Formats: sequence, structure tokens, C-alpha cells
Amino acid sequence: MAKDKKLVEQITSMDVDFAQWYTDVVKKAELMGYSSIKGFMIFKPAGYALWENIKAELDKRFKETGVENVYMPMVIPESLLQKEKDHVEGFAPEVAWVTHGGLNELQERLCIRPTSETLFCDFYKDEVQSYRDLPKVYNQWCSVVRWEKETRPFLRSREFLWQEGHTAHATFEEAEERTQQMLNLYADFCEDFLAIPVVRGKKTDKEKFAGAEATYTIEALMHDGKALQSGTSHNFGDGFAKAYEIQYTDKDNKLKHVFQTSWGMTTRLIGALIMVHGDNSGLVLPPKVAPTQVCIVPIMQKKEGVLEKANEVKEMLSNFRVKVDDSDKSPGWKFSEQEMRGIPLRIEMGPRDIEANQAIIVRRDTSEKITVSIDELQTKVGELLDTMQKEMLERARKHRDAHTYVAKNYDEFKEIVATKPGFVKAMWCGDQACEDKIKEETTATARCMPFTQEHISDTCVCCGKKATKMVYWGKAY
Amino acid sequence: MAKDKKLVEQITSMDVDFAQWYTDVVKKAELMGYSSIKGFMIFKPAGYALWENIKAELDKRFKETGVENVYMPMVIPESLLQKEKDHVEGFAPEVAWVTHGGLNELQERLCIRPTSETLFCDFYKDEVQSYRDLPKVYNQWCSVVRWEKETRPFLRSREFLWQEGHTAHATFEEAEERTQQMLNLYADFCEDFLAIPVVRGKKTDKEKFAGAEATYTIEALMHDGKALQSGTSHNFGDGFAKAYEIQYTDKDNKLKHVFQTSWGMTTRLIGALIMVHGDNSGLVLPPKVAPTQVCIVPIMQKKEGVLEKANEVKEMLSNFRVKVDDSDKSPGWKFSEQEMRGIPLRIEMGPRDIEANQAIIVRRDTSEKITVSIDELQTKVGELLDTMQKEMLERARKHRDAHTYVAKNYDEFKEIVATKPGFVKAMWCGDQACEDKIKEETTATARCMPFTQEHISDTCVCCGKKATKMVYWGKAY
Repeated sequence: MAKDKKLVEQITSMDVDFAQWYTDVVKKAELMGYSSIKGFMIFKPAGYALWENIKAELDKRFKETGVENVYMPMVIPESLLQKEKDHVEGFAPEVAWVTHGGLNELQERLCIRPTSETLFCDFYKDEVQSYRDLPKVYNQWCSVVRWEKETRPFLRSREFLWQEGHTAHATFEEAEERTQQMLNLYADFCEDFLAIPVVRGKKTDKEKFAGAEATYTIEALMHDGKALQSGTSHNFGDGFAKAYEIQYTDKDNKLKHVFQTSWGMTTRLIGALIMVHGDNSGLVLPPKVAPTQVCIVPIMQKKEGVLEKANEVKEMLSNFRVKVDDSDKSPGWKFSEQEMRGIPLRIEMGPRDIEANQAIIVRRDTSEKITVSIDELQTKVGELLDTMQKEMLERARKHRDAHTYVAKNYDEFKEIVATKPGFVKAMWCGDQACEDKIKEETTATARCMPFTQEHISDTCVCCGKKATKMVYWGKAY
Repeated sequence: MAKDKKLVEQITSMDVDFAQWYTDVVKKAELMGYSSIKGFMIFKPAGYALWENIKAELDKRFKETGVENVYMPMVIPESLLQKEKDHVEGFAPEVAWVTHGGLNELQERLCIRPTSETLFCDFYKDEVQSYRDLPKVYNQWCSVVRWEKETRPFLRSREFLWQEGHTAHATFEEAEERTQQMLNLYADFCEDFLAIPVVRGKKTDKEKFAGAEATYTIEALMHDGKALQSGTSHNFGDGFAKAYEIQYTDKDNKLKHVFQTSWGMTTRLIGALIMVHGDNSGLVLPPKVAPTQVCIVPIMQKKEGVLEKANEVKEMLSNFRVKVDDSDKSPGWKFSEQEMRGIPLRIEMGPRDIEANQAIIVRRDTSEKITVSIDELQTKVGELLDTMQKEMLERARKHRDAHTYVAKNYDEFKEIVATKPGFVKAMWCGDQACEDKIKEETTATARCMPFTQEHISDTCVCCGKKATKMVYWGKAY
């Protein structure tokens, strides 16, 4: 509960200290709390409501493409984790181990799932026998644990919420198609629903998922110019199928290995929402994901008829998510609170407005004030929410484009990375040595090789040898 | 994937071996699979879809009463678990312990949550400072782990899915009101949505939740006459608040402890659905919870126009959850599969029906066949689903009432428990010694002291002393 009138003054300006601004907003918008267990967070109602909306929309989009939801055990036996070599190397160092059940020590220790490829493989091994059993397009919504050393709310914590899709197919082509389909679904979701523009592309081998043949990613640019990997989709080829012996009898009566994919999005999307759209007054939520879209603030609410009218207007706007703030706080305090929580529209209405049959709508993103006849409120609110959703995406896109640079040689590259926060587009030879060198010398990493390639020059920005790919580079969360 | 034509023949008759029938249905209706981790289950799509529907409806009802969702860490430090004496005694013997994070041993071991009272208390301790911060009416949807020795799909497993509500209030009365409100919400949900009649009542001290002052329960009777505790709601008084030091400053400026409740429902409700409504052809799902409500089976589907018409009818029925089974299996096989999966209505339509502009609807619960003009299908399907929902509840209620007996003395009691599966209503003195004796000698336990009391006799059925309560007794899952 907020207890101080100077709500906005309690958050650091984003231009002064972006990291502190972020932490302040997370706290003051009451999205998350720190638990007394190191590295584990508490999703408070305002934070969890965002995840519920993200989840409902993503789940609907998944199901439209034939995805079915399942639920797998939260623990994995050590021997099962170890069957795929790259995978275990990637995850074993950062899992939590269960060694005792009840009063007894376990014969084999179990890790809490850091991701569930191994469990799905173990399941598919028995479940898939014939080509008739394919494809399997399963997904689960759950929490996972990774024993991170440094943690930040939503961005990196020892436990986070996510969805993980795991599919099995008869052919490599079908698996590849599903991998790209889900990546494009993620990208469309980010742009349409969260108003976050993303770059779609492929990860370099160095950056790909442990055990994958190819990892595709969407990369978003935060307000401070840092990149955030916002969703990934992996094509495993038949690597896991061979390690876990997942075979089916094909139409030609031959035994074949399946081809698999996995793809996931997490609660770090909430971090992206904050860092792409937020401002010095707090959170700014795109209307589609906002748990509350309109906050009605009655002015002089003790005067006869004011609260009644406010509630009448709420009823009138029943096709939107509306609340009336009828608490005993001052209007100014209520304004700050609505702004901090990022509620897209505020409707102010006092005795004089009501007498004139009008109300004032204030947009959270632009602070624009619009006086509207109460008869036209419903239409106007709908229009403003639509406009705001579109303009927030455009604004974020402009910001991203204005912070995307081109480097033709290594001096330019280093100069940009050192002085201009954002993406750097530059050519690369394909050699990991250059990637390692760039990371070591600049801390920038290869975010992705975008699907939409551009020809910037003929040579690798680092070594000067023949370039094979244009890469987006950046410092990342 | 089903691979055999004799689907129904593969399940044991419920009259021959109810336990085996249950296991067969769980398997053949593809609700759940066994994982390779002992005691941990896999929710397959058909099983998880039931939970999704249960969850969506319960969540909507929760929110109508002001509940807000949050998410707490999945682990609890040992020292935190130990603060409330009764609670730790109740749960410590059956938790899973995490002792290592990454490559290091933890300084303090953590248990995977068996329930989250301790975490909510730890959270409320900081979150609740003033009477303005009350009430807190929070809930979370998550999975919990209890290291059970014997496990059965949905009824008892080492991990299960549930919701746990945890509230904090200024007064005992308000906490008591919330405890009963949620129990009644559970009861109404079971009856309206799952068509499962329940007895509402209070648990005896012996059977109440570890750390609670009072536990309320809803008890349902399965087809085999065994009882299933289907939802519980606990009033903690200020016991946890004192152990965890949750205090607030009241309007009178005095520091006071809060009063708390918790309440939960789990995936064992799916077990109840199976065991209350199922028959020898498999699952029978009440229309409201059924993921698919209508299965259209085209007859002679290769004939021109048949599949087209089936899909047209599906479109016509778009306000219901409908699928067309256009697989290459035989109609007979499709019928068995629809029956096994418990889909409420089947619509059969072949070339002759289509020519006559009609279709045949078959009810899953009664096998009744109704020939209906295609023009009237939409109305008729709606009516039949409503009727089926109501009649399934009535049928279950009749079965329960027919298996609820009255015992006036201990000989009668023992005779009934030994020979007639069901509930036994009998008077009790209130002494735990009698409860212990009854359990030891008959294996029946006190299911609840129903809110609606009846006067059966003046004396305790066991010891003959003055009776204080009428109790429902029964053998339980």
C-alpha cells in the first residue's frame, strides 16, 4: 500500500539511473516483491495480472495453430538429464537438486526442471510409435528454476514462469516449419499485443540453445539501448530423438527418428513492457495487455451525484476494463497512482463536468487531455485505446530505428558500441573467433542474424575476411 | 493413440473391480500417463483440458468475490517452515528437500512447497502494516509436492496442481465469513459445474488441517460408495499471525494480529468426475466441464457431400464446443472413442440423413437416440446439454442418497460399514477416543459434521455417552 503523497518523486529519473528507475517502477507499481529466499521473487497482483493477460492471449494464438496443453513433472532424474551431451553441459551447472523425499535420502537425485526437453523426450519415446501418432504439438505453462548468481526482477531470477512448447514431427522440414511458425507467432504477439517491435533472426552457433541445431530469436531494444532476447524457438533436428531413442514406424514400414522443436516465452516479457514503454511517471501499459484500461477519478466525490455518475459511466463502458477509484485519497494522489500503474486512460469528472454532461479523458502516454460529451464517451474511449496501442508501437519502433547504427569497420564498431547505446548492424565472417573477440573487447554480443539481410560491406567488421552474414550486435540484458 | 478396435473391451467392468476400472479409464481416455519418476504423473491433453476448464470457471467465481491472483516462490527455507508448530509437524515428514543449488551445497535446505501458508505469512508480515492494508484476499494457481508413499492418478500423487487461497483480515468474524464463503463457493461449483452433489460440513479436530482452528470440507460420494474430500477451507484464527508476527495498526492506533484463512481445490476433482459419472463405456463428462461437448461422426464420409455437411453443422453449432471426427477410422470405432472420452453428445449423419435433412443425436449418459431436423439442431443441442447437466446431478444425488445410511448403535454401524458402501450418519460424543476406535475397528473416518444437523439419537454411536454432533462417516480415498 502506498503511504506517501509524493509517489512520483520516489522514483529515480530514467535519465539519471535507468537500472534504479527500473527497480523503483517495479516496486512502486507494485508488480513484484522480494521474498526472503535469495533470488526468488513474489508476483504481486498487478504483476501477475499482466502475466495472466499475456498467457491468455498467447494460449489462444497457440491453440489456433493446433497446440495442445499438457503438464509434466517438475523434477528430472539426473540420469535422464544426462542423455543429451550438449544439453546437460548447458544446464547441469545451474540446476537445483532435490536429494531427500520425506525422511529418506533419494537413491537418485532429481533436479527441478530448468527446461523440460528431457521429460518430453522420455514421454515421446513411449507415446510415439507410428507415423499416425505424429505430429505431437504439446505445450506447458509452468515455472522453472535456474540457479542464477545475479538476479533482477522479471529479467533474471532463480524461478520464473513461462511456457515451453515441445513438438515431434516426421520430417526435418515439418520441424523447421513449426520452429519458424512459432517464432513468427511470438513476433506478431509482441508487436500486436505488447506494442514492442522486434528483430526476427537466427542465433549464431555460439549463442544457440544447448542441444539445438538452430535457434531463432526475437530481439527487442529497451529504452536504454540494451537488447532483450524476448522469445526463442529451436529446431533440434533428430539429435534428441537419437539420444532418447524416439522412433516411429513410417508408412514405408521403416523405423525412423522423429524431428523435434521447442519454443518458449517467459515473464521477462513484463520486464520488456516496463523498459520499452515506461517513463518518469512510471509504467505505461499498451491497452491490449493492461489489466485496467480506464481509471475513472471522481472529483469532489462527496458531492451528491458524483460517485453515482462515475459508476454509471463505468457501466456504460462495460466492454472495456474499467475501475472507479472511489478511495478517500486526494484526486492528485489518484492521478499519480494511475500514472504509476500505467493505466492507459484516466477519466476525470467533477460536479461541473457532470452538469455540462462531459468528462475529461487523459492519455497516459502523451498526457493529452480531451474533453468529451458523456454521450460520446464509449466511442471515444474505444478510439483512443486503439490509437494509443498503434502509436505506442510506432513510438517504440522510431526509438529503436533511431538507435540502430551501421558499422563498416572495427573502429566505427567500437566507437558506436562505446558511445551510442543501441543495435549495431555489421557484417561477419561466420567465425566464432571474431564473435569472441568482439564480446571481449566491447561486451557486445551477436543478438541475431536477421531474416531480412542487408549488404553493408563485403568484409567481416572484425577480421576483414569475406563476410557471410549481416548481424545485429548489442549489449544485452 | 488408440491402436486397437476393441476399445471398450479393454476396460474392466466397474462392478468387477472398481479400482482397475478407474485405472483403465484414466489410461484409455488418455487423461494421464505415468512418468519415469516414481509417483509423478503426466497430464495428457484430455486430462489437462479438464483442469483448464475447472480452473477458468473457479477463477472467474473467485474474482467475483474480490480474489486477486499472485505467485509465490516454489521453495520454502526450513527455518520458515518451522515457525508454526502444528503446521511443521503435519508437513515436514512428507516434503522434498533441495540441498544443492548449481554446484554448491546450500547453507540452509529448502523444501518444495507442500502448501504455502508459511510463504504468505512471511509476505504479509511486511505487506500488512495498517488497517488500510486489510483485507488481503490472494490466491495462487500452482503445483505442490508431497512425498506420498502410495499414489493413484489424480487422487494422490507426489506432485499435483491446485489453487491455494490465503487471506488476512482485521477480525476473527471476517475471517470466519471468508472461510465459509469459499466453502460454499466450492460446493456450488461442484454441484452447478461438475454435477457432483456434496455434503458441506466441518472437520473434527482429528481431521482438521495442521495449524487450523477450524477446517470446513465438502465431501462427495464416489460410485463405489467411498467418500472423496473435494475441497477444504480453513480458519486459522490468529495462530499463524502470532507465530509469524503479522501485526497491523488499527484505527484505534493499537497494534493487533491479523486473522487468516486458506482454502484449496486440486486436480483430484478430475478423479471425482471420473468416479461419480463414469460407466462401463468410459468417462461421462457433464456438458459444462467437457472440453468437447459434441462429436459429429459422419457416416460413409467418402460419399460426396457428407463431410461438407458435417462441417456445415459444426459451423451452425459454433456456440458449443464441437469437433468433427473425420479420421479414417470406422464409425463404430469413432463411437467407442467418443464414449470412452465422455463427450456428452454424438451427432451421427450419413447420406440418407442428409437427404432427409436430419441427424441423429445420441446422449452419452443415457444412450438415448433422438432424430432431429437439421434446422432444429442448434436449439435441440442446447436443450439436451442443459438437460444432461441437470440430470447428471440428480442421478448422482439419488445414488448418493441411496447409499447414505443411518446407524443408531455400534452394531448397526459396524454392519453397515462392513456390508454397505456409502456414507453412514451417526451421532458422536465429540471425544477423539471414539473416532480412533471407529477408525481402527471399521476403517471408516469422520468425513464431516454437516452444517445441516439431524437428530438421530441422544447418544454416541460408539461409547453411548451423550452425543453432541451428528457426523457423516465413511471409507475415504
